[in-house]
Amino acid sequence: MSFKLRMEQASRKADSRVVLALDLPPNEPEKLFLKAEETLEKTHSHICAVKLNHHLTLPLGLFDKIGDLLAQARDYGLPTIMDCKVNDIGNTNRIIAEYYFKAGFDAVIANPIVGWEEGLQPVFETARLMNKGVILLVYMSHKGAPEGYGRKVFMEETSQPVFQYKAFAQKALQWNADGAVVGATYPEKIREVHSILGEKVPIYSPGIGAQGGGVEMAVKGGAKYVIVGREITLAEDPAKTAEKLKASAKHL
Amino acid sequence: MSFKLRMEQASRKADSRVVLALDLPPNEPEKLFLKAEETLEKTHSHICAVKLNHHLTLPLGLFDKIGDLLAQARDYGLPTIMDCKVNDIGNTNRIIAEYYFKAGFDAVIANPIVGWEEGLQPVFETARLMNKGVILLVYMSHKGAPEGYGRKVFMEETSQPVFQYKAFAQKALQWNADGAVVGATYPEKIREVHSILGEKVPIYSPGIGAQGGGVEMAVKGGAKYVIVGREITLAEDPAKTAEKLKASAKHL
Repeated sequence: MSFKLRMEQASRKADSRVVLALDLPPNEPEKLFLKAEETLEKTHSHICAVKLNHHLTLPLGLFDKIGDLLAQARDYGLPTIMDCKVNDIGNTNRIIAEYYFKAGFDAVIANPIVGWEEGLQPVFETARLMNKGVILLVYMSHKGAPEGYGRKVFMEETSQPVFQYKAFAQKALQWNADGAVVGATYPEKIREVHSILGEKVPIYSPGIGAQGGGVEMAVKGGAKYVIVGREITLAEDPAKTAEKLKASAKHL
Repeated sequence: MSFKLRMEQASRKADSRVVLALDLPPNEPEKLFLKAEETLEKTHSHICAVKLNHHLTLPLGLFDKIGDLLAQARDYGLPTIMDCKVNDIGNTNRIIAEYYFKAGFDAVIANPIVGWEEGLQPVFETARLMNKGVILLVYMSHKGAPEGYGRKVFMEETSQPVFQYKAFAQKALQWNADGAVVGATYPEKIREVHSILGEKVPIYSPGIGAQGGGVEMAVKGGAKYVIVGREITLAEDPAKTAEKLKASAKHL
């Protein structure tokens, strides 16, 4: 089964659109691991997937404690996503993707700025070979996002300029990506990207809570999944927060 | 002393512009470590710095064997660069940079596509606080590079479009970056970027050898440093290859 379908299945089973971004502030590796394990244990029944970032992979080591966390997620039936925003040359991208997939991740996030040839093509090839997923950045959630993703760009010398994020959304379709990231802090962009992608490529929306984005606006705009990090990981009661977020995305 | 000056000093001392990209094809961690250690030992007198990528950090672990390699480089007086092409939101970028700097790296490579606010600003702030360097991607070396870096972009709604890489070069000046990456496979871009940066921001040029770029063209175009990976790491005699590359860049 493809990553996209595994996500749908996990989301239906948990009746949740919430992807937990297991981002924890810097700390000693042992403490980080215990906190990550505990947060996952407390929230697992309210979420549909887990996204990890360098917050954990750098201090814990990809082939060390990260494997234990991925196994824990697998035991809960939760797909796992490595948010590496891969954006290197093809040969390096392939090696990066292979390492993450071998460590147990089900999908990686990639930046389409590097293009296809000797860029993301090897990532998609590797993912297809290993039955894994590739999710593309389309519009990020931070304040500086318009500076790169929001520019008007000439994709061909002769044609009219298009917005960079719309061009990236077109690439997500063309490359048959398993998902597209659009920040919840820019709900109008979710709507525009959704009108390009339809139901073919699901939208993952980060930036909920700490960054100011709201679950309801994101889902109403067309986000299929909402990515929530600090709002849950730093909450006094992560389980309750995850449950609330799950509920507020469900009723739409 | 700033990272930029430390690079100049190391380059003068070794009489070399060659930055070794210590990229090795996937293998068992122990073998990778020994090969990396050996390559560094054989080539250290012909190079001016070492660049690491995920080829080594993922399998070896940032706070495990990577520390030993960085210590080895330090013993040889060689600055070290982590080619993480950081391109996340600011909060995450800061944490990523802190981890790499704490592990012992002297500089990180970053992608200006994420912009300044809540993008690369925290990376530059962290680098300044810890007396480390930030090198920006301006034009990459692979075939797909024109698809992102080579587009014409409207930086302001009302003005004329500019090429993305020229806009990134302007950011390198504006943000006072310690270096700018321009692929040796596009020597005309090195020349154009050099005419923007002058001597203020040194150009680092990857893509030598395996990817088809040449040292002489790169240096003639204005590259201050040439980044060489597979051409050295996969050579039968890495020392001799490094020495030759050093010589061909010197006589210009």
